[in-house]
Amino acid sequence: MKKKINIGVIGAGRIGKIHTENIIRYINEASIKTVADYYPDQVKEWADNIGIKSLVKEPEEIINDPEIEAVFICSPTNTHSKYIVESSKAGKDIFCEKPMDLDLDTVKRTIKIVEETGVKFQIGFNRRFDHNFMKVHDLIREGKIGNINLLKITSWDPAPPPIEYSMVCGGIFLDMTIHDFDMARFLSGTEVEEVYALAAVRIDSDIGKVCSDYDTAITSLKFKDGSIGVIDNCRKASHGYDQRVEVLGSKGTAAILNDTPSTAVLSDDNGVCYEKPLNFFIDRYADAYAKEIKEFFSAIKQDRQPSVSLIDGLKPLEIGIAALKSAKEGRPVKIEEIS
Amino acid sequence: MKKKINIGVIGAGRIGKIHTENIIRYINEASIKTVADYYPDQVKEWADNIGIKSLVKEPEEIINDPEIEAVFICSPTNTHSKYIVESSKAGKDIFCEKPMDLDLDTVKRTIKIVEETGVKFQIGFNRRFDHNFMKVHDLIREGKIGNINLLKITSWDPAPPPIEYSMVCGGIFLDMTIHDFDMARFLSGTEVEEVYALAAVRIDSDIGKVCSDYDTAITSLKFKDGSIGVIDNCRKASHGYDQRVEVLGSKGTAAILNDTPSTAVLSDDNGVCYEKPLNFFIDRYADAYAKEIKEFFSAIKQDRQPSVSLIDGLKPLEIGIAALKSAKEGRPVKIEEIS
Amino acid sequence: MKKKINIGVIGAGRIGKIHTENIIRYINEASIKTVADYYPDQVKEWADNIGIKSLVKEPEEIINDPEIEAVFICSPTNTHSKYIVESSKAGKDIFCEKPMDLDLDTVKRTIKIVEETGVKFQIGFNRRFDHNFMKVHDLIREGKIGNINLLKITSWDPAPPPIEYSMVCGGIFLDMTIHDFDMARFLSGTEVEEVYALAAVRIDSDIGKVCSDYDTAITSLKFKDGSIGVIDNCRKASHGYDQRVEVLGSKGTAAILNDTPSTAVLSDDNGVCYEKPLNFFIDRYADAYAKEIKEFFSAIKQDRQPSVSLIDGLKPLEIGIAALKSAKEGRPVKIEEIS
Amino acid sequence: MKKKINIGVIGAGRIGKIHTENIIRYINEASIKTVADYYPDQVKEWADNIGIKSLVKEPEEIINDPEIEAVFICSPTNTHSKYIVESSKAGKDIFCEKPMDLDLDTVKRTIKIVEETGVKFQIGFNRRFDHNFMKVHDLIREGKIGNINLLKITSWDPAPPPIEYSMVCGGIFLDMTIHDFDMARFLSGTEVEEVYALAAVRIDSDIGKVCSDYDTAITSLKFKDGSIGVIDNCRKASHGYDQRVEVLGSKGTAAILNDTPSTAVLSDDNGVCYEKPLNFFIDRYADAYAKEIKEFFSAIKQDRQPSVSLIDGLKPLEIGIAALKSAKEGRPVKIEEIS
Repeated sequence: MKKKINIGVIGAGRIGKIHTENIIRYINEASIKTVADYYPDQVKEWADNIGIKSLVKEPEEIINDPEIEAVFICSPTNTHSKYIVESSKAGKDIFCEKPMDLDLDTVKRTIKIVEETGVKFQIGFNRRFDHNFMKVHDLIREGKIGNINLLKITSWDPAPPPIEYSMVCGGIFLDMTIHDFDMARFLSGTEVEEVYALAAVRIDSDIGKVCSDYDTAITSLKFKDGSIGVIDNCRKASHGYDQRVEVLGSKGTAAILNDTPSTAVLSDDNGVCYEKPLNFFIDRYADAYAKEIKEFFSAIKQDRQPSVSLIDGLKPLEIGIAALKSAKEGRPVKIEEIS
Repeated sequence: MKKKINIGVIGAGRIGKIHTENIIRYINEASIKTVADYYPDQVKEWADNIGIKSLVKEPEEIINDPEIEAVFICSPTNTHSKYIVESSKAGKDIFCEKPMDLDLDTVKRTIKIVEETGVKFQIGFNRRFDHNFMKVHDLIREGKIGNINLLKITSWDPAPPPIEYSMVCGGIFLDMTIHDFDMARFLSGTEVEEVYALAAVRIDSDIGKVCSDYDTAITSLKFKDGSIGVIDNCRKASHGYDQRVEVLGSKGTAAILNDTPSTAVLSDDNGVCYEKPLNFFIDRYADAYAKEIKEFFSAIKQDRQPSVSLIDGLKPLEIGIAALKSAKEGRPVKIEEIS
Repeated sequence: MKKKINIGVIGAGRIGKIHTENIIRYINEASIKTVADYYPDQVKEWADNIGIKSLVKEPEEIINDPEIEAVFICSPTNTHSKYIVESSKAGKDIFCEKPMDLDLDTVKRTIKIVEETGVKFQIGFNRRFDHNFMKVHDLIREGKIGNINLLKITSWDPAPPPIEYSMVCGGIFLDMTIHDFDMARFLSGTEVEEVYALAAVRIDSDIGKVCSDYDTAITSLKFKDGSIGVIDNCRKASHGYDQRVEVLGSKGTAAILNDTPSTAVLSDDNGVCYEKPLNFFIDRYADAYAKEIKEFFSAIKQDRQPSVSLIDGLKPLEIGIAALKSAKEGRPVKIEEIS
Repeated sequence: MKKKINIGVIGAGRIGKIHTENIIRYINEASIKTVADYYPDQVKEWADNIGIKSLVKEPEEIINDPEIEAVFICSPTNTHSKYIVESSKAGKDIFCEKPMDLDLDTVKRTIKIVEETGVKFQIGFNRRFDHNFMKVHDLIREGKIGNINLLKITSWDPAPPPIEYSMVCGGIFLDMTIHDFDMARFLSGTEVEEVYALAAVRIDSDIGKVCSDYDTAITSLKFKDGSIGVIDNCRKASHGYDQRVEVLGSKGTAAILNDTPSTAVLSDDNGVCYEKPLNFFIDRYADAYAKEIKEFFSAIKQDRQPSVSLIDGLKPLEIGIAALKSAKEGRPVKIEEIS
């Protein structure tokens, strides 16, 4: 039996717990050595249950532990860059939740440092590993639809987040649409050149008044290869978490439908009714969360950068900042204005 | 047996033939008295077959015939206004194919005259009468989805028109998207305030070079009630004529799928395959063409204006002109800039 | 203009009216000369409205009219054979509603006479002309699914008929399943050799007590080529008129879904809901009724027997009688026991 | 941390491996102490990889180990009864793969012994725990479809098994349809009273000649509550593993569609194509295998019999034997003839 890779997990909130459990379940070649959480008492029972032996408060206990080879950074967004920098300098490979930071300069500085250290780095754009999006990606790469002419992404939440969350999340474009910007890049295989965002407050007036943010948006994208795209977002769809994409190419169109808890159909006097989509991202992307960490450990094993790395942490942020500027100023904004 | 309403049909091209045959089949209370076509020899066999007794060259033979009570104007677009004006002055009720004209001032003058004469006037936005779009309209009006927040229209052609057609049709926004602008107004029940069009030439470079037009476009709409919408168009989809709409409201979402020749499914080693959509507008909107003329004759019978009348001939044209301006100038354009 | 074929329609009930109107609408080469109905007063307004000039009580006025070349027999089932015999002896081509008769010997005698006269004869199994069933038929004939191994037909009514109807209709197997027996023959291209029917009274106990009939049935079919099939029927499905078929072949499977009034989908907190199937046979098979008479007139024009003729009137009746015997006796019954 | 339940796994073939891995992944309260396999060398690498410390050849090492509290019997069918009896006498709770045995008397004797020992017993009808079938079960139990009138099950394999397997598996009714008999009982909540099986050899003539078995079958079911049902099976469907059910009730109909690897749709000149169903039972029922063992450990924890227990091991076997008798003798067979 080979020696296992020792892992440290920084932050045991919802997503930190998911990654920790997935490592235990699916990654035979890795072992969680330490979990750090700012409120260790709150996660102790969970940690005990799954057999975590070392639960600490300070991330430094992970970063300074020479036996730990790789870290999962799942702490609040505003601490990501700090831990990325420290971990990379300590020579540890890094899996970091998105976004790297909300500030573009900080992200650029962080990237520079990681590049210099040469550690492996993966950013947590989990949807790239979802079976549906991945299939569309494969169909495109296999040439099944020819050249892309038009790309459409729909992403609707089941309900708006609490207003406290909206105040710190960076706004709809950096919190929600950022996944779609990543998906647009992933599927199209090209970069966004210009963005125009038409945004509104339709769901919760406090999102506008308190947060100066939006809850409904249509974001048009001009790609470098001349194709065009559009993302439509809303913080609330009564039928739930709606996650679709449709790509029109010169030879065909690839699209996905929503995933549902079952394929059951109830037909009666009211109609022919299917189930609503899987409730929210934890359920919807359960397999994607497992698959993205497999990619991380494959990359380590094969001594290469993961398929979604530093540049993929930067680009969607730039587009998101441009989209916000566009919505505020009512005009299309080129990405080069931002970067 | 009641006396029948005498009808004159001006223009027996593809759409003129459809209306003529539908009147014969479905409108018991009307009778085609005369058909005028610039090339009577080319349509003689068709006219004979369906029992048309009077086939003439000059529309004036219809306009000046006091026995004819209503006209169907199905001639080329650049003659619409002339025949509308003459027919209305002759006191005849008018069904006119869209658009009324490509020039906004001409349309406004024409509308003024028709209003003064007080004749019935219907503009041929047939899709309003399609069973799918009508059902979405009904669901919205019945309050099933609450207030509209986001409205999406997809309209793709199976193949681009001949370049000769593209040169005279007024461009993609006035020829193709104009139907979608009408649909946006019909479904939302409000007016468009501002438009931003991102357009590209992806299908046929001559559409750009020879016609200075586009074949692929994403048009964002800001509505007067604060909701937003988007239309995506392409002149070519390999799977054929794709006609969908999706409306996200505060309580639910109403959408339509494409109509197909049959519901047959062939499952084999290649997958589980359904038929492509009905080929093109003639097949796809066959029932809508029949239903729109029923509305025209109902309006005459009930002595009221048809449900899609003069203002509906004007507004989509304004939006289309604004969209073209937006695409050319790369900025959002308010409709009031145009009108 | 060619001389039109003069038609007489015997029986102007629901289905007689449909055929009459379809002839007027879709068959340019034919003209309704006379309609006979036992209660002419009840259909006078309808006849006037659609321009029928000769409305009579006695079918003999049609049968004895030498100017009438073809008859549509739409009178009650127990009169079909009589009018078939008289019409054929009068040299008229015949379109007759199914079934020819409920008594097998009567049907056989009638067939013999029609064969001797040599007139064209079409039996009204309209579903063969439905776009969905026809597409499955075409897929099979084109070899898309290889050899048939298993054939399944689902046919459910929205609600049971009035008990008075059930008493005279010949029972579920001769009234309802007979269409499915015809479809099984049409799709499989082979004959049924043996049948086993498992039947129950689940919807309306009077169907059992008063009519000695069933309202729910599963009928297994052994075909002459060794393949097998099954038909499931029920007189009531809450979601409405359910009409499906699924054919498993050596290379693929062909199936159909139900037709709906529209493709609209309403998604909300209750789920993702489509419309119920088209209400009942009048709506569901509207196009099939039109297409079957086109076949009749094509056959006349091309001087050949229609594609669904005498043998197709006999075989489903035999299978239906065998199915009833099977249900009553609780054992499989060979068709040769019956015929 | 509580003491874990020690588990022994008898038989580390395909299904034994699945249960072992699922226990490790999903059952925190259990620990695999020993795995027994007749060919330990062949499974050593697998066992090492997942951390199994004790790999033995003889099941007796498990059965005689007083520290082992529960066993998973995943050995060949003809050894099931022997290990059930020995394990139950040793006081161990038992999870046993289906079927308990192919011989009815053996099964009855075994059941009697297990009942006397009072150990927990679960039979591996995994489909009851599948999300799709479970949802239909829930809809029925919640009264959403009213009383069941007609129940239909479709179960098609992607390809026939090797002829060697067909020779020992007990035939199509005891190997394949047995799952459907269990499902019929599970969904209907009543027992089968009589069965009629129409079976054919259509896929592989050796299945008939060498095994005296069938590869295609339609099995009609008469239930004790008067409702009726039908199962259609085929050993080969070109589109793959097809697993559906449809239940028509007095108030509605509940059905399921197939599960697919993704919801991707490719639309092009060939049509609108979805993916084939998940390949075979290992993929299709992955979640059901995990859920069924959770039920087993819940039952142990709550000191009750699992929801699918001894009687559920007996009944489908009786129905299967009756179905085979019916197919051979060409007549309906009552279950009481068998039991």
